[in-house]
Amino acid sequence: MNWSANMPHHDHTPVTVIGLGSMGAALAGAFIDAGYPTTVWNRTTSKAEPLVSKGAVVTQTVREAVAASPFVVVCLSTYDATIDTLEQAGAELAERTLVTLNTGTPDGARRMANWASQHGARFLDGAIKNVPMAVGKPDTLLYYSGDKAVFDEHETALRVLGGDTVHLGEEPDLAALYEMAVGGVLLPSLLAFFQGATYVTARGLRADTLVRYTTKWLEMITSALPHLAKQIDTGDYTGPIGATVGIFEEALVEQRHYGQQERIDISWQAPILDILNRAIAAGHRDHSISALVEVLRKPAQAA
Amino acid sequence: MNWSANMPHHDHTPVTVIGLGSMGAALAGAFIDAGYPTTVWNRTTSKAEPLVSKGAVVTQTVREAVAASPFVVVCLSTYDATIDTLEQAGAELAERTLVTLNTGTPDGARRMANWASQHGARFLDGAIKNVPMAVGKPDTLLYYSGDKAVFDEHETALRVLGGDTVHLGEEPDLAALYEMAVGGVLLPSLLAFFQGATYVTARGLRADTLVRYTTKWLEMITSALPHLAKQIDTGDYTGPIGATVGIFEEALVEQRHYGQQERIDISWQAPILDILNRAIAAGHRDHSISALVEVLRKPAQAA
Repeated sequence: MNWSANMPHHDHTPVTVIGLGSMGAALAGAFIDAGYPTTVWNRTTSKAEPLVSKGAVVTQTVREAVAASPFVVVCLSTYDATIDTLEQAGAELAERTLVTLNTGTPDGARRMANWASQHGARFLDGAIKNVPMAVGKPDTLLYYSGDKAVFDEHETALRVLGGDTVHLGEEPDLAALYEMAVGGVLLPSLLAFFQGATYVTARGLRADTLVRYTTKWLEMITSALPHLAKQIDTGDYTGPIGATVGIFEEALVEQRHYGQQERIDISWQAPILDILNRAIAAGHRDHSISALVEVLRKPAQAA
Repeated sequence: MNWSANMPHHDHTPVTVIGLGSMGAALAGAFIDAGYPTTVWNRTTSKAEPLVSKGAVVTQTVREAVAASPFVVVCLSTYDATIDTLEQAGAELAERTLVTLNTGTPDGARRMANWASQHGARFLDGAIKNVPMAVGKPDTLLYYSGDKAVFDEHETALRVLGGDTVHLGEEPDLAALYEMAVGGVLLPSLLAFFQGATYVTARGLRADTLVRYTTKWLEMITSALPHLAKQIDTGDYTGPIGATVGIFEEALVEQRHYGQQERIDISWQAPILDILNRAIAAGHRDHSISALVEVLRKPAQAA
């Protein structure tokens, strides 16, 4: 054990972490490990025990937890849950820095920022879309939005949670916006991987045989992103392009045919085919697949 | 110019490449660069000109092209197009090795294999799901299925097309199966990225600001794949898991709410939400998201 690493340093701002789910507990653990005097609160106090044994102080009330530190990190499920909980701190939030790390919409982030402002707190909204195990690692990405001066003042402490710490801008809802814009890639990618797993396991083959090849695919997608983003930013979907809308449409028709034949549920791809067909109808057949943004921007009808 | 690299070596099997779209031309170019005596054919002969200037021989008929080499690679759009074209070679295919590299269903690959067998050809079906520019690079993946002896005999020539060359198994439709199972990840991932681009560009921000963060996400997905595949292979969706079906359902409801609010087309996510809800109804709310394979295996109704 590294004794010095666990000693509270008096040059480290005291921090409070509210909400000790798996992510909140990881955040508090990272602060403790980095030598920050750490106060924690959770509705179920027993969840604080492992942190207390590492040196955290647990309080019985939210008000005490907030009063303990100038820097308060809240990791609850939603903005509504955060506001409900912080209401219990009464006027204690005034002059303190409040950082929220939960999922939510940009709209929710703006409500949260207004609430914080009304309570006299300085505010940053952040997003960490990663597993709790990644907290504190040099490569772990967290982004924040809100008052840049607050970010600068607390950047050292924020960096304890992940080495790749970014300030997106002054508007408080940017972290939620980017979390939604970026994080939306996860479920469709995974669902497509699961569909592939359904295909191969139906043949008696193991899903893990897909991992190596899917990894290559994801690397290829990664390498294509700058080009696709540039096409979107310039609105020029011609020029040297990977695959066209037309090619994707043909491949998807085959994919659906196969799913129907094998009695595997490919129903979720019907509206994707519809988007491709709308892009083709709009003249994008021979354009880069990035032309689909034009269709997404013009919903045909209510969803 | 490296003279020796472009000289035909007499220890290199002569190869024929039929179909000179951007991918076929890249394949032929790689064989020429590696010193293989290369014959090419394309319906539009003018497409062969750049290859002829590099040393390829172009023929006027498919029959002549097939007769020129014991090793024939066909890169046309579909299996049907391949069969239509090769019918023009008559009996010339007998005793030769035929390799097809096109997209298609496992069903199509089996038809292709039967056709090749009826014509006395030894057959491998392959898949290269990458851009033409990647042909010939050490890291480029191509997989093949069919007669292992044929693969072993021609492995050196096949490796010219990409250093990461794999034989998946004897069943001739395995390459098409894996291409479909793996390649299906591409479009949903891209569409989700485009949706994110629609969100940020609607705010006046550039799509390229998403690239860095999306790259991190794709790396995270990559690192999760072995764990998800293991859950699928064991059928055990409990244990230490990243995010549950329930958490994804909550996030998607928020995502859809945001899309509706911002008048961005999120209609394609409706059936994904339906799949999540069916998984929850089947008792998977607190299970890993990989439990969705159980829903995909049991289509609720025709798509």
